[in-house]
Amino acid sequence: MGRAIQLARRGEGSVEPNPLVGCVVVRDDQVVGEGWHERFGGPHAEVNALQAAGALAQGATLYVTLEPCCHTGKTPPCVSAVIASGVQQVVIAHHDPFPQVDGAGVAALQAAGVECVEGVLKAEAAQLLAPYLKLVTTGRPWVIGKWAMTLDGKIATRTGSSKWISGEASRAFAHEIRGRMDAIVVGAGTLVADDPLLTARPPGPRKPVRVVIAGDRPLPLDRKLWKTPDGGPVLVAIGAGYPIDEAAALESCGVEVIQAEADALLDELGRRRLTNVLVEGGGKLLGQLFDERLVDEALVFIAPKIIGGHAAPGPLGGIGAESIEHALKLVSPSWICLGDDLCLRGRLPSA
Amino acid sequence: MGRAIQLARRGEGSVEPNPLVGCVVVRDDQVVGEGWHERFGGPHAEVNALQAAGALAQGATLYVTLEPCCHTGKTPPCVSAVIASGVQQVVIAHHDPFPQVDGAGVAALQAAGVECVEGVLKAEAAQLLAPYLKLVTTGRPWVIGKWAMTLDGKIATRTGSSKWISGEASRAFAHEIRGRMDAIVVGAGTLVADDPLLTARPPGPRKPVRVVIAGDRPLPLDRKLWKTPDGGPVLVAIGAGYPIDEAAALESCGVEVIQAEADALLDELGRRRLTNVLVEGGGKLLGQLFDERLVDEALVFIAPKIIGGHAAPGPLGGIGAESIEHALKLVSPSWICLGDDLCLRGRLPSA
Repeated sequence: MGRAIQLARRGEGSVEPNPLVGCVVVRDDQVVGEGWHERFGGPHAEVNALQAAGALAQGATLYVTLEPCCHTGKTPPCVSAVIASGVQQVVIAHHDPFPQVDGAGVAALQAAGVECVEGVLKAEAAQLLAPYLKLVTTGRPWVIGKWAMTLDGKIATRTGSSKWISGEASRAFAHEIRGRMDAIVVGAGTLVADDPLLTARPPGPRKPVRVVIAGDRPLPLDRKLWKTPDGGPVLVAIGAGYPIDEAAALESCGVEVIQAEADALLDELGRRRLTNVLVEGGGKLLGQLFDERLVDEALVFIAPKIIGGHAAPGPLGGIGAESIEHALKLVSPSWICLGDDLCLRGRLPSA
Repeated sequence: MGRAIQLARRGEGSVEPNPLVGCVVVRDDQVVGEGWHERFGGPHAEVNALQAAGALAQGATLYVTLEPCCHTGKTPPCVSAVIASGVQQVVIAHHDPFPQVDGAGVAALQAAGVECVEGVLKAEAAQLLAPYLKLVTTGRPWVIGKWAMTLDGKIATRTGSSKWISGEASRAFAHEIRGRMDAIVVGAGTLVADDPLLTARPPGPRKPVRVVIAGDRPLPLDRKLWKTPDGGPVLVAIGAGYPIDEAAALESCGVEVIQAEADALLDELGRRRLTNVLVEGGGKLLGQLFDERLVDEALVFIAPKIIGGHAAPGPLGGIGAESIEHALKLVSPSWICLGDDLCLRGRLPSA
């Protein structure tokens, strides 16, 4: 199952809003077939693995990270393929809460005489599948809050200079992550200060929607975001007080404008079946999202530099925790080195 | 020589203001003696290693991290012991700038027919010896700036709650470091807010002087620091505008009071032969020290927690860098994990 989870990750950025699924077929203690869901609309992991196994699937055990589907979506139901293959036993890490599956996959297999075992490496699979599970169960995307800061917790100098806090390896990794996201979100302040493109360079498997949460203050009309249609669609979420003519001016740049605060925006992104959303700042927006408990995962780059200064901004504004006991303690954080920098990923306790 | 450097570190906290020195005697590719300077006033590394080697030192090569001394201090000169041992060759990592040595050690050895090689692993030895070298060459102690912060760069919540940012393993490590320091320094704000003891718990090889940089505002007279004489001597550095009667009140608590700003205080601590000084905050003092380029090393604990909030303080106040190019990039930073926390150590470029 560990191997199946590993395989599943290969689909990241290519399969969403489908889940990441990996599959290994084992017979007589030998792996006879491997597969993963490679791209949205393409064959599922089970079908790929069974195809690799061929006739050797007869009497074998199939390990799969998610309960096989039993409905016809973009592809025929996997349970049919599994039953047809002659597999004797199916071992599942996590059940699929998708309304058209949700236990019916296992029931169909059992009805056909295929033995099913559930819950093997379930916690690991839940971590792998977290964005999918959140989207299916809450209708909202997985929200990753990202920032790069110095060792003294600054994201810019007192004069606003911020290029670059992190090193080359960190920035390359950040672009790689962008290329697997469904949306990249920034606040109005970042749009004004940095005039970012919000594209993945080089491009990844996915071209994310570029989103600005504008609030009520009119955005400048000379931003690169409005002039780079090839960089991906642009969506601006405005507040109720945003001037109508200013919104129209944005729309005339080819930008989609909707009225939504952060909370409602996430609902809308979920309705559009966006799975992974990367919020890149600035501090005001990220602080607000943390205050409203809308962030599922933190992705932090720390550069071994000192900026110093009372007036140099930190990564999170907003209200914040009242006391240390109310601080959000990340769940199973992991660190990697990227050049001289460090990168931490961890889930928020609510996620 | 790598082994000699390793051995030298064992003296940290026990030998200062003497240098950390390690020594290995090798004959026919076999280590025949090892030693290090174990405690201030005790025998030097060479003497310990030669004693371990005994008659096997005859014709051997002696590896030592620092040029052997040629003057009588607390102990007789090492060059005499080296010459008497019959060692054929001495390999030295770093020369000793101490005025009574400064090349004279090597000259004395050579005059006696002992072959000398200098500069082997010199950079590593310079790192090992940095606090000693700074004290000898500038008359000032090595200044380590320390803080513990969250993943969003906060050292307390908006209400000032800060116990505890870091986890148990980090705090134990911080106490271990305190126990090897000559002085622990805090600013007036930290004294008022935290009422700290500034002791190493459990005690280490050294009982540091506890120092408060007070500025001109009278310090409260009910602090633990004034009431715990067993915790180590207390020194308060007051500004020129500190009220005389308030200073007298502190002195009547058994506290030494001198008039000095940060810069002059470091001179005074150097005159007292203090080698390692740990500055634990708060942000105002640390920010000022970084602004004045008085910090040699940063020691930062990062806890995977989010505090958030515009009003929650960060580790460094002061003025800070104007632009990213002026940020201080740490030299060869190293990271270790302490429980869920991370701890970074790195030298400032000026150090």
